[in-house]
Amino acid sequence: MLFFTQCFGAVLDLIHLRFQHYKAKRVFSAAGQLVCVVNPTHSLKYAPTRCAAAQTSTEQGILPPCHHHEAVHDPQLVPCTCPLFSCPWEGHLEVVVSHLRQTHHINILQGAEIVFLATDMHLPAPTDWIIMHSCLGHQFLLVLRKQEKYEGHPQFFATMMLIGTPTQADNFTYRLELNRNQRRLKWEATPRSVLECVDSVISDGDCLVLNTSLAQLFSDNGSLAIGIAITTSKVHNAEAEI
Amino acid sequence: MLFFTQCFGAVLDLIHLRFQHYKAKRVFSAAGQLVCVVNPTHSLKYAPTRCAAAQTSTEQGILPPCHHHEAVHDPQLVPCTCPLFSCPWEGHLEVVVSHLRQTHHINILQGAEIVFLATDMHLPAPTDWIIMHSCLGHQFLLVLRKQEKYEGHPQFFATMMLIGTPTQADNFTYRLELNRNQRRLKWEATPRSVLECVDSVISDGDCLVLNTSLAQLFSDNGSLAIGIAITTSKVHNAEAEI
Repeated sequence: MLFFTQCFGAVLDLIHLRFQHYKAKRVFSAAGQLVCVVNPTHSLKYAPTRCAAAQTSTEQGILPPCHHHEAVHDPQLVPCTCPLFSCPWEGHLEVVVSHLRQTHHINILQGAEIVFLATDMHLPAPTDWIIMHSCLGHQFLLVLRKQEKYEGHPQFFATMMLIGTPTQADNFTYRLELNRNQRRLKWEATPRSVLECVDSVISDGDCLVLNTSLAQLFSDNGSLAIGIAITTSKVHNAEAEI
Repeated sequence: MLFFTQCFGAVLDLIHLRFQHYKAKRVFSAAGQLVCVVNPTHSLKYAPTRCAAAQTSTEQGILPPCHHHEAVHDPQLVPCTCPLFSCPWEGHLEVVVSHLRQTHHINILQGAEIVFLATDMHLPAPTDWIIMHSCLGHQFLLVLRKQEKYEGHPQFFATMMLIGTPTQADNFTYRLELNRNQRRLKWEATPRSVLECVDSVISDGDCLVLNTSLAQLFSDNGSLAIGIAITTSKVHNAEAEI
């Protein structure tokens, strides 16, 4: 009996996911776009950000207690780029992708243009929606975060980071697009490297920022569809030609 | 001597304006775009918004003391659409443009695509930058407002309104574009009619919203260049064809 109940639950989940998939397809009707349903990662406690904690530790000449490496810091060693504050992992750039997949079960998608469908936008801050995106021979990390920068006023911040160096990141441009009810909002920028901290990108506001009211205008039944496209940067191509 | 000092001041102002004009031209390099330098209108006191005041008055069965019309309200009579709170003027839609030009000295520009260059972005909230834009046989009002929706956290709100009815407004799409330092932000929407209140559009957040940090990223030496384009709405064209 329990087996049949579980089976029925799984079928219901599949129908729900399929429904959300078609909803996003309807919004982003361009052929060939992959729609990925992303469920939230709800961090129970943010406390000081990892950047602030790392800076304080460096200023005091000590390393954070959760870090297990030697005192001489290798610049290629990056703290875990998953925004879960509690993750103590550090590693070389080359193994960040496998860490994110294996430890945090973050999906990786292929294709130059995908649709990121974040569910349960109503959940209280802080909440993150994360996905990895593989294209043009590199892996990118999309982070959508709901955070209260000003107490009582949650906002949504979306940014894309390259799992690579800042020099590599300069070769790309990413675009995030919201499109609903005859309104369209597009953000284009050069991705930051994961060697820079996602927390500082968000606190600097150098990303797509949405007030709750604007997020609600673009949401459909509690889900926000963000179209993502990555291209090689034209400026760098032109410079390379010269 | 005083005459020569004033002449020198005027020449300096002209050089400064010319320099800002070329700066904006450099950012929006598309040929044929008209660049308009817009100086701020600093409202000393906002107090309750006109909408709120009007609503309260209606609820209490009285009219605001500054309004000189009869108790029977004509829906075609609009309060002054200039966001200066203290303006007591009301009039028919047909004379809104001449009121804005003559009483508030708001410039009117021609052309489907123009660049709105708002100066002195550092001024404290509340501050407005306003211009009228004439194209496709209609007049539009662009309002950029710096306002503290949350105390101590000023934000910038930009919206475009048609000096016409809501039905007429539905036939158009406006686009606001910020472009600087390899970052681009675009907002596209249907303009609202000036018969709706500009204050409520901004409080609903149904417009382009910029945090101070994002506004600084797009500003150049305290000025913000916004590219504006107006087109006839494709949806309505398609419906008309059917």
